[in-house]
Amino acid sequence: MSKDNFVEQIADIEADFPQWYTDVVLKTKLVDYGPVKGTMIIRPYGYAIWENIQRELDCRFKATGHENAYFPLLIPMSYFTKEAEHVEGFAPEVAVVTHAGGEELAEPLAIRPTSETIFGNMYSKWLQSYRDLPIKINQWANVMRWEKTTRPFLRTSEFLWQEGHTAHSNEQEAVDETLQMLEVYKEFAENVLAIPVICGRKTEKEKFAGAVATYGMEAMMKDGKSLQAGTSHYLGQNFSKAFDIKYLDKDGAQKLAYTTSWGVSTRLIGALIMAHGDQRGLVLPPKVAPLQVVIVPIAAKKGNVMEVCGQIQQTLQAAGIRVKLDDTDNSPGWKFNEWEMKGVPLRIELGPRDIEDGKALVFRRDTLEKCPVALDGIQTQIALLLEKVQKEMLEAARVRRDNKIVYAEDVDGILKGVEGGNFVKAGWCGCRECEDKIKAQTAATARVYAEGEIAEKCAVCGKAAKHLIIYARAY
Amino acid sequence: MSKDNFVEQIADIEADFPQWYTDVVLKTKLVDYGPVKGTMIIRPYGYAIWENIQRELDCRFKATGHENAYFPLLIPMSYFTKEAEHVEGFAPEVAVVTHAGGEELAEPLAIRPTSETIFGNMYSKWLQSYRDLPIKINQWANVMRWEKTTRPFLRTSEFLWQEGHTAHSNEQEAVDETLQMLEVYKEFAENVLAIPVICGRKTEKEKFAGAVATYGMEAMMKDGKSLQAGTSHYLGQNFSKAFDIKYLDKDGAQKLAYTTSWGVSTRLIGALIMAHGDQRGLVLPPKVAPLQVVIVPIAAKKGNVMEVCGQIQQTLQAAGIRVKLDDTDNSPGWKFNEWEMKGVPLRIELGPRDIEDGKALVFRRDTLEKCPVALDGIQTQIALLLEKVQKEMLEAARVRRDNKIVYAEDVDGILKGVEGGNFVKAGWCGCRECEDKIKAQTAATARVYAEGEIAEKCAVCGKAAKHLIIYARAY
Repeated sequence: MSKDNFVEQIADIEADFPQWYTDVVLKTKLVDYGPVKGTMIIRPYGYAIWENIQRELDCRFKATGHENAYFPLLIPMSYFTKEAEHVEGFAPEVAVVTHAGGEELAEPLAIRPTSETIFGNMYSKWLQSYRDLPIKINQWANVMRWEKTTRPFLRTSEFLWQEGHTAHSNEQEAVDETLQMLEVYKEFAENVLAIPVICGRKTEKEKFAGAVATYGMEAMMKDGKSLQAGTSHYLGQNFSKAFDIKYLDKDGAQKLAYTTSWGVSTRLIGALIMAHGDQRGLVLPPKVAPLQVVIVPIAAKKGNVMEVCGQIQQTLQAAGIRVKLDDTDNSPGWKFNEWEMKGVPLRIELGPRDIEDGKALVFRRDTLEKCPVALDGIQTQIALLLEKVQKEMLEAARVRRDNKIVYAEDVDGILKGVEGGNFVKAGWCGCRECEDKIKAQTAATARVYAEGEIAEKCAVCGKAAKHLIIYARAY
Repeated sequence: MSKDNFVEQIADIEADFPQWYTDVVLKTKLVDYGPVKGTMIIRPYGYAIWENIQRELDCRFKATGHENAYFPLLIPMSYFTKEAEHVEGFAPEVAVVTHAGGEELAEPLAIRPTSETIFGNMYSKWLQSYRDLPIKINQWANVMRWEKTTRPFLRTSEFLWQEGHTAHSNEQEAVDETLQMLEVYKEFAENVLAIPVICGRKTEKEKFAGAVATYGMEAMMKDGKSLQAGTSHYLGQNFSKAFDIKYLDKDGAQKLAYTTSWGVSTRLIGALIMAHGDQRGLVLPPKVAPLQVVIVPIAAKKGNVMEVCGQIQQTLQAAGIRVKLDDTDNSPGWKFNEWEMKGVPLRIELGPRDIEDGKALVFRRDTLEKCPVALDGIQTQIALLLEKVQKEMLEAARVRRDNKIVYAEDVDGILKGVEGGNFVKAGWCGCRECEDKIKAQTAATARVYAEGEIAEKCAVCGKAAKHLIIYARAY
């Protein structure tokens, strides 16, 4: 298969970004469609990315004092009605078990779309005294939300995620927890996924069903749309009231706890693809790439090429680098294309001439540059180069994004901005009517409250602005 | 709370083993009951054991060439009918989703009780040529089997497990895979869980629904009952025929693949509890213990006791040991009881006098012995002691078990044997009728075909024995 044929399999990223995305996720074998509408199989290459994401996040959660647990998949439907906003938000999306063990159930059971209600129920049982606080538990689990329109990783009826649920004795501590976890997500997104994110509070309209305040982390995709990559919710006493999460305080009084919840999901894999990918396919940051280096022998049958390739593989492996030696019968050109499509950060090309010269040619997937690296001490050079790629991918993404944040004075300006693939900052009076109008006229939504100087006027009604908002079309 | 009160909370292990089990799992906060009948919450202390189990198994799966993936929770009900034995075995236990997104579904969906059918469906799609074989995928997932009688970890409607599914070009390779994974489980059970296991083939009656042959790993609990701790199935071409798992071979012919599946679950936590526990509670082997060492200061407020305890904690932590310093206000006696109940392998006791003497007192949870250890270089001594505990727990369990394996000549002998809390080896003619009679008359089942010299006669009918069977009552 020639290089051209290979690349032609992927739709033009400029002309048809959605089709490009679908082509990339399927052809790189990240994912496949499940037999039930809206479900996906996360294939080994995609799941390896998720394992790397999990490992990196999990150690951050533990370092901030959280423990993992596992709560049941099935939740009595009646639990959802206990918190009024929550049921309104989630009931329409719930999948319901009505029969089990050959019998109809007395009460239908929901497959968890999120687990605030069942955590709330158990926290109410476990929490006795102020000494039991704070409770800081996370779980890695599958959840289900029945969506009409689905796309692999971005919106599927079942997805994998983590959900943290914490309970605290006072408001300040719960708010601090909410913001701390948002910060953990941000640091992770930037330093591990190499995706610069904008974090901030969400509007009332966009917040989580049942929260007092939702904070979101927004990432710009290459088409200028925003992807909500994580959220952290301050739930106040809403769920404590609904589930009776009370404790005996030092002063002998029964008090309601303050709770939080926060989560990220397999959507992050979609974010990785759309934040970094290019016409050749995936571009993966080294920290989450299943393979960090692929070795492609040139004229493999000549002299000691395979032998030296094998030595390099072992040296890199011993240095803790995830490396593969492609020893298949495919041509070097075919291999180049395949591993470029799969987004492997570095490719080492090695032929008889290179061995004579005591160096290998190293190709960087992110910049498409080639440079020679001495074989002597190659593991040190490759490790440094992986660090450099990781850092420069973030910087490049930051430049791309910062060049696409614009200001607008009115609705027309917002429309032009988002049509041009930008995030648009604009003033907002704070009323729901104006927020709804923006969405109706521009298909953009308020992503988060922006930091910085507030604009003078609301872009819709022209009244005095109370907030600066980042508007964008979103996944 | 006095020591006696504390211990009295746990039922007598000799007099009421089932209640002892329930007391231990609840009081040590391994688990709690979920609101839906038969479901459990795996609490942080229990989940930490599961994380250790996962880590140890996962690296063994990867070392034997398997990759992880994630397949959907929901399976079309029609898939189960494709393999006749399989549907018969699992249909009665399935939980069914009939409604989702506010509408009734066109086809009811099963929550996976196991995933052979959906793996089969996808393997059929992915498998094209002999070059694609073998396919060796594992998944870590939740599954659901609606059980009438449930007990935490041992039998719950939802549980966590791993299920490996592989496809091969020929029978030998598939059989080898089946036996290799059984061996992986055995090595893991013995070296990580410190549980000696007996592995062997299951009878037709006891095999997995849809398998050609099932191999099981049986562990003896302290009441002499057996717990099936893992299974590995050779599926032949049964699922390949049902799901059309075919490939184009080198010779240009379309051929059916040979498949396997194998799994272990959160049941293993139940095995740990019942294989090692005693009247004081849990006894955990160091390799899976969430905490390997607890430090209890004696006369904590005197001199530099807390300071030295803190230094020891840091030294052990730096040596990669999972350690906790119990600096709560509880009395040393209270702490001793709590951490003994929670099964922490080693306790370091340190008071002013010990510091003067330059040593600490170390208590072994498994043997209840105390010995002094020099503070100088304590991390090395503790690491060695943890290894010793790990090894001796296995040896002790092996001796306990081997003393409780007996031979029987007839049904009466089998009955007496299992009533005495033994595994019983006896001859079997190979017919289903005799197997059923044993179960009816002794409440014991054929666990596995035993290795060794075959008895002369079938214990039931007295005809010539074809096999030696290990009978036991089982969880």
